[in-house]
Formats: sequence, C-alpha cells, structure tokens
Amino acid sequence: MTKVVLITGSTSGIGLGIAQEFAAKGYNVMFNGLEKNGPDIAQEVAQKYNVKTKFNGANMMKPDEIAALVKDTEDTFGHIDVLINCAGVQYVSPIEDFPNERWDLIIGVNLSSAFHTTKAAWKGMKARKFGRIINISSAHGLVASKGKSAYVASKHGITGLTKAIALEGAEYNITCNAICPGYVRTPLVEGQIKDQAKLHGISEDEVISKIMLEQHAVKEFVSIQSLAGMALFLASEEAKVITGASIPMEGGWTAK
Amino acid sequence: MTKVVLITGSTSGIGLGIAQEFAAKGYNVMFNGLEKNGPDIAQEVAQKYNVKTKFNGANMMKPDEIAALVKDTEDTFGHIDVLINCAGVQYVSPIEDFPNERWDLIIGVNLSSAFHTTKAAWKGMKARKFGRIINISSAHGLVASKGKSAYVASKHGITGLTKAIALEGAEYNITCNAICPGYVRTPLVEGQIKDQAKLHGISEDEVISKIMLEQHAVKEFVSIQSLAGMALFLASEEAKVITGASIPMEGGWTAK
Amino acid sequence: MTKVVLITGSTSGIGLGIAQEFAAKGYNVMFNGLEKNGPDIAQEVAQKYNVKTKFNGANMMKPDEIAALVKDTEDTFGHIDVLINCAGVQYVSPIEDFPNERWDLIIGVNLSSAFHTTKAAWKGMKARKFGRIINISSAHGLVASKGKSAYVASKHGITGLTKAIALEGAEYNITCNAICPGYVRTPLVEGQIKDQAKLHGISEDEVISKIMLEQHAVKEFVSIQSLAGMALFLASEEAKVITGASIPMEGGWTAK
Amino acid sequence: MTKVVLITGSTSGIGLGIAQEFAAKGYNVMFNGLEKNGPDIAQEVAQKYNVKTKFNGANMMKPDEIAALVKDTEDTFGHIDVLINCAGVQYVSPIEDFPNERWDLIIGVNLSSAFHTTKAAWKGMKARKFGRIINISSAHGLVASKGKSAYVASKHGITGLTKAIALEGAEYNITCNAICPGYVRTPLVEGQIKDQAKLHGISEDEVISKIMLEQHAVKEFVSIQSLAGMALFLASEEAKVITGASIPMEGGWTAK
Repeated sequence: MTKVVLITGSTSGIGLGIAQEFAAKGYNVMFNGLEKNGPDIAQEVAQKYNVKTKFNGANMMKPDEIAALVKDTEDTFGHIDVLINCAGVQYVSPIEDFPNERWDLIIGVNLSSAFHTTKAAWKGMKARKFGRIINISSAHGLVASKGKSAYVASKHGITGLTKAIALEGAEYNITCNAICPGYVRTPLVEGQIKDQAKLHGISEDEVISKIMLEQHAVKEFVSIQSLAGMALFLASEEAKVITGASIPMEGGWTAK
Repeated sequence: MTKVVLITGSTSGIGLGIAQEFAAKGYNVMFNGLEKNGPDIAQEVAQKYNVKTKFNGANMMKPDEIAALVKDTEDTFGHIDVLINCAGVQYVSPIEDFPNERWDLIIGVNLSSAFHTTKAAWKGMKARKFGRIINISSAHGLVASKGKSAYVASKHGITGLTKAIALEGAEYNITCNAICPGYVRTPLVEGQIKDQAKLHGISEDEVISKIMLEQHAVKEFVSIQSLAGMALFLASEEAKVITGASIPMEGGWTAK
Repeated sequence: MTKVVLITGSTSGIGLGIAQEFAAKGYNVMFNGLEKNGPDIAQEVAQKYNVKTKFNGANMMKPDEIAALVKDTEDTFGHIDVLINCAGVQYVSPIEDFPNERWDLIIGVNLSSAFHTTKAAWKGMKARKFGRIINISSAHGLVASKGKSAYVASKHGITGLTKAIALEGAEYNITCNAICPGYVRTPLVEGQIKDQAKLHGISEDEVISKIMLEQHAVKEFVSIQSLAGMALFLASEEAKVITGASIPMEGGWTAK
Repeated sequence: MTKVVLITGSTSGIGLGIAQEFAAKGYNVMFNGLEKNGPDIAQEVAQKYNVKTKFNGANMMKPDEIAALVKDTEDTFGHIDVLINCAGVQYVSPIEDFPNERWDLIIGVNLSSAFHTTKAAWKGMKARKFGRIINISSAHGLVASKGKSAYVASKHGITGLTKAIALEGAEYNITCNAICPGYVRTPLVEGQIKDQAKLHGISEDEVISKIMLEQHAVKEFVSIQSLAGMALFLASEEAKVITGASIPMEGGWTAK
C-alpha cells in the first residue's frame, strides 16, 4: 500500500522541500499552503516523482478547515501514515509593542494548528496502529532570542505538545517528534543574504557567518535534505521507539 | 516606598496563598480572580497584614481587561514591582475528544494572558529599572502527562516565554522566571483526596502517595509556603541574576 | 576512499550490532572489546560484508592503550571517519554501599575513555576536515534512576562532553553527538527476561512491559537496527549541522 | 540543636562566602580547602558570628581523606544537616592538547569528590531523616564552552549525580540540588579584570560586559550573597520538595 503524507505549509520553503523528498521515496502527498498556485505545485511534484498528490488550501487558523483537510487526505488517499506540521509564521518585535493580533496568529498557526491536525488524524492512525507525527519546530523550541516572544512561546509549546501526544500515542504505534532546525537556506533567506550584503557593504559569506548564523557553532545553513532525511527516518517503522523527542538540527546552537 | 505585587488568579488556591505571604512581607497587593467575593478577600488580607490591597476581576481571556488591570494597579499603587502570573485552568481528555473550546481556553488563560500582562506592565518596569515577573508554571512546563495536551503545551509555552522575556528584560533589571510545582495541597485537592479515598476504599495517605503523588519521588505535596518562599526570593534585588529559569519544585518528578 | 569506523566495546551487544550495520554499508571497521575471540569476530564480519576489519583489545581504563588503539586504526586503514564510543559498564547499588572501585570503573570506562579516544582521533579528523564522533549514551544521560548514581553521572558527563566537543569541532566539520537509548534487547537482556519470568512466575511479555520497560511509554525494546540507523544518519555528510545533540531513543521515557 | 554545615572548598572564593552566610544564620561550620591558614579562617568566622567551626584539610582527590572529613564533622559537631560540595578546579585547553592529568584532576575534584562526600554523609542523614546536599555546579552543568571539555563533563556529571541522589534520598527527607552560577566576582576574578583591562587597553567595565560576561544576558556578576541566599533556601525544611534540580543563576546564559 502506498504510503501517504500530509504536510501543512508545504507549497514553499522547508515544507515544499520535505514534500519533494517524501515524494521521491514514493509517498503520496497532500499539499497545503498559502500559494495561489498550490494545485500546480502539487501537480508538478506528482509528475516528477510519479506519485499521487493533491492540494488543499485550508487556513491554519480555522479548525473546521483543518478537519476538512485531514478528511480530504483520507478520502483522497485512503489513510494518513505521516503528518508533518510545517506551517509557521514569525514576527519580531519588542514585547511592549508586540501586536496582539500577531501573537494570536503565531500561537494559532505555529501551535494550535498542530493540535487540530493531530486531533483530526488521530482516529485513523489509531485504527491502523500506525502513525508518525512530525512537528517542524525550531531551535526556538529549546531556547529563546530577543524580540521573538510569540515565536519562542509557540515553539516551546510544540515541544510540550510533542511530549504529550507521544505519551498518548505510545500504545497505538503512533509516535510524535519535533525537529528543531537552526537557520535553513530557503528562497526567502537567499534574498535576505543579498539584501544584507548590500546594506552593510560586506560579502555574502560574512552576512551568513556573522549575522545570520551568529548562533550556529557550525557556520552552515541547515539543508532541507538533512531535515527531510531526519523526517524520513522518524517516519520509518524502525523509528517506533523514538517519540516525544525534540531533536536539535541547529549547528550546535543549543550546546552553548 | 512600599513594594507592589500584581497577582492574577489570586482569589483562591496557590495565588491566594502567595498573595498572603507577599502581604505578610509588606507588599501592597492587587488581587484578581473569578471569586465573586474578590473585594472581600482583598479587604481581609489588607486588614490582617496592614497593607493596601485592591481587587480587579479582569477576565484573563480579554486583552483589554488585562491591560486595564495593569493600569488599575499602577493608578492605585503608583507602580508594579512584581507581576505574578498565576491564573490557570486545566482540562483532561484524550486528544481525539479534546474540545476545541477547552484548548483555546487553556492556551488563552495559561499562556496568552501572561503575554498580555507582561506587555502591559513592561513600560512601567522599564522606566523604573526594576521588574520581577514570576510565572507560576508547573512540572508540566518540563514534562508531559497523558490526556493533558493543552495544559502541557501551554506550560511549555510559558517556559519559552519566560526565556524570551528574560532576554528582553536583561538590560532593564527586569527578570522573568517560572516556578514549576508538582502537586500542591489546595482546598480543591483536599476534597479530591477525601473523594478518592471513599471511591477506592483506601486510606487518604494511600490516595496521596500512590495516586496523587505517583510522579513525585518525595511523597509530599508542595506547600504554598515553599512556593511563596521561592517567589519572594526571586522578587528580591539580590536575585537579579536569576532570569529565564524554570525552577522545578516537584519532589523530584523530572529527575527520573 | 573506503570509510572507516572505530567502535569501542564492539565485540558484543550494541557495539557489535552497530559494527555489523556499518560493515553492511561498506565501512572498514576497527573492533575493540573484552571478548577473547575479538579477532574471530572481526574476521567474521569482514567476510560476511566484504570489508576490512581488525581487532584491538585496548583496555578502556588505560589512556596509553586507547591512544594506541587510535593509532592502530589510522595505521591499518589510513584514517578514521567515524568514532563510536560504545564501551560501557554498569553497577547498581544504594549510594551508601557503592564501592569506590565501581565508581572509578564506571566513570573511567563510560566517560573518561570517550575523552581519550576523542583526543587521540582529533588530529587526524581535523587535518582531513571530516569527523563524526558518536557517543552511545543512555536515557540516563538525560534523567536518573535509583541506585545508578555512577552510571547516571557518567552518562550526564557524556552529555556535557558531547556539547563541548561539538563546539570545538564546529570549524573542522567534526560533529559530536550522543544517542540516548532506553532498554535494548541484547543477548544479555534475553537471558534476564527468561530468568525474571521464572523468578516471578509471570510471562516473558509481562516481564518486558511491566518490569524491564516500566520507564518506556512505548513498550518495546530499542532495536539495534534503529540505533545503527540513527548512527549512520549522524555519520553522513548531510548531518553536518547536527552537533552537540543528545538524541533520545527511549520509547518516550524522558517525555514524562 | 544547632545546625551543622560541611562545605568543601570553603577557605576562599564562593565556598568561603557561603560559609560566612551560613555562619551568620547560626550554623556551625566545618571548613575544608587548600589554604594553609585554613584553621585561622575557620577561627575568624567562629568569632565573628559566634558559632563553632573547624578546619579539615582533606584532599578532594583522596576518598579516605574525604571519609575522614565527614567523620571529623560528625565527631566534632554531632551530625551534618547540610553538605555543600563547592571544591572545584578548572583548566582550559583545546581537546587535542588537554593533559590527561588535568582531566583526571577535574573529574576527580569536581565530580567524584561529591560522590565520596555524599556516600560518607548518607548514613547519618538517613538515620536523622534530614539532609540537604547542595552541589555548587555551574552554567557549564547545563551548556558547554569551547576549551572546557573536562569542566563541562564534570559539571554535567554533577547534574546527573544530583538527580540520582535526589531519587535515593526522597524517602529519607534528604534532598540534593545543584546551583548553576554564571560568573561570580571572587578575589581571583577581581585580579583578572584589572589584568585584562591593561592587556586590551579598555576599561574595567568593558572587560566585564564584553569579555567576562559575554554569555550573560544580565551584565552583572553573580553575587555570593545571592548564591548563599539560594543555598540557605534549599537548606530549609520548607524546601523539602525541591530535589534533583539544577537551578540556573547565570544572568540568562542558558535561556538563549
């Protein structure tokens, strides 16, 4: 039976990269995200890797749409093996000026949506005695940075949710883990590197090592391939004893 | 100048106990909570300890009321030295049946309200170069239990928020820490002990050591006096270098 | 160029299992351990997987023998890509009766030997700008159990050493991580299951779920295949940003 | 009955400061340390605070001398209420040049000596159903720094030992906790500040905030008074539910 993965926030960046790697391993993929051309993205991946895909544009702030996304996945592909919660938003501001709406958005998309997807997917995973829930968290699920109160709270919340779901899933062969990346080179970041190099009059290499990756001991971006490699490992039958973990992939950020 | 503490959720249980200990040390206290007789509770503490108190019934789900609570405190007592976020709710359910409204309530009261109080109190603390923010979290800010997905997520969220606020407050002598108690003997818990002893036909001592305190290595409830003792220490000038910490007071729960 | 792995404590149990998996992926393997027939074990693996192997019986309590083991590996195979510190001993006793010699042995073999192997292998890894150091630690690198003061101290020490070495290796593409397994089904454990089933007059399944795996939420042993799978992932070029981590593989033990 | 504290490494720096604060609260104190004038130091504290003191120069590398130190304390003062493991040494070097003797010294003094003191004091504490063991650890019990492999390993080892001892002590009202300070202003550090200011041609304030306290978010040294305040709190009857904890007092170092 072909394996099925549902990935929220998968029409760009990390989510899209992970979707491609899962497709390359033969998974059918349910896409979700904000891009208008979501159906085209899903279609391209289907053709390139010879798998089935679909796109559902559920809004991660709307529990009903999230429940419908899960149902759509099960209706379309028969079941869900792997749920990857990748949708995420960020906003940086000193606490005293942090807009309430941004707090609500970050907590809603980064934390609560993972509750809603998990809740909706639970019955099917439990019945089939197989489930792999993978939360794409952040080094900020382990430590903080200035100006990121909402993001850090949401990602630490994911660290906790991951543990709680792990305990509930233990008897059903449903595992739940979080991956905690440092900085990842996405198209968005590519643009920022160029901009900052111009702005500060320094080389792109310096932007990377001194500004962007200041917190990394290893002065390299986290590659999407390495994230997908870890996710694929966690998705395997053999990883059944790994659960509740928040695994750092952040160049030694939290070791210091 | 008399010191001032604002304590959310302080008309019963842990919050009330901490309020009394701060009043006993001479703090003026702003009370907040759900009890109808909040003003009476505040009045009693004022008389008993010869300090000034006031009650404000702000709803912890309403950012505007929270902002008004902080303003009320500053207007009434002139400033805020110590903010203690103690308001909290709990709900236990398997993930697949967990009501969305309960998730929202727990995240709102246990996590987001601490963002709103902190944000509102920030300007005053920053201007006075003194602030002590103390989040009454839980062992569930460090580890999980089955059926408590929302609570564990909210309390881990507090662990993260505590770190983020600590970094922002560092230059202003504003510290932010969390206290992570295990089980505390409150009037609510007293009733549960009696009920469970009847229900299971075992002694109250057995209820405590085998059921309630199963997770504690030390088979004792956390006393409100010990929580207040830690809070008073964190509130002192001398504790200025303690910040961002989530301090376990849970009978060795998380050591194993 | 054929990759080379040096694995301490690899003539039985977890170490041997990992050695076989690395050999299966084409690594040349330096074996080390207490078994008298170490050379035969190495020879068998070489034949089965068509790789080169050697055995060196260095005593993990003797820094000079450890340095010689590393030199032997480099002389035999040309270099070391991956160093896996797997040698370990255990002893259980209440603190007041814990023999000093046992403390010294556990700290020496479980902790100090990893310092000595790392130190000896450093120059070669640094020169080649590639190194993967993998410490086979334990859930006891993250939490404690009664009666295991020395073991818990040694494994937490490894957690710290792993972080320190990660920071030093960051600029040389040398990573250092720890894997923290729960209970692993080794031949030694097989025997214990049978014995305990007889002793307590219960089924082997009950021995496993109620006695041996009491701390696991997932009531399964950690398989050597899953440990080796993680180790192989950490050993890859693509895992270069994972460093300083102590990765739990313990059935949710530390999530609660 | 007068309370008794035994403090290793208490003839200078942090240990001496803590000893004075305990004496100020009326504790009889057993001193230990390397200073030749240990007996004079003990005598001065006795006179200043009107308590009984004694000095014992036990070498922290020698288990027999440690056992004799504990016995001497019990013989002299009747019993031990509080054991504070404060003796510690440091050495900084890249891993490849780290002298084996320095590794052994750091592991021996910083980690193993706490095992030996705890083991020796256990019987008496257990019999009296009261014990407070406080390990003066370090932020390096939680995170690492470059060049400090031995120190970081030893202090993480203490984090683990603290948890293990907490579990064993739980039924006897023996608690065990670690305090994890950042940089503390001791006479030794005072000298370093002056030296570095000259060396770099910068002000002493800059040496402190940019070099010494680079890792602190709060740019202040940890005061010995705050360490002693926490230790006194942990030593109290009311702190009986705090056990197994490693409490950060490091200006937000590990929050980021």
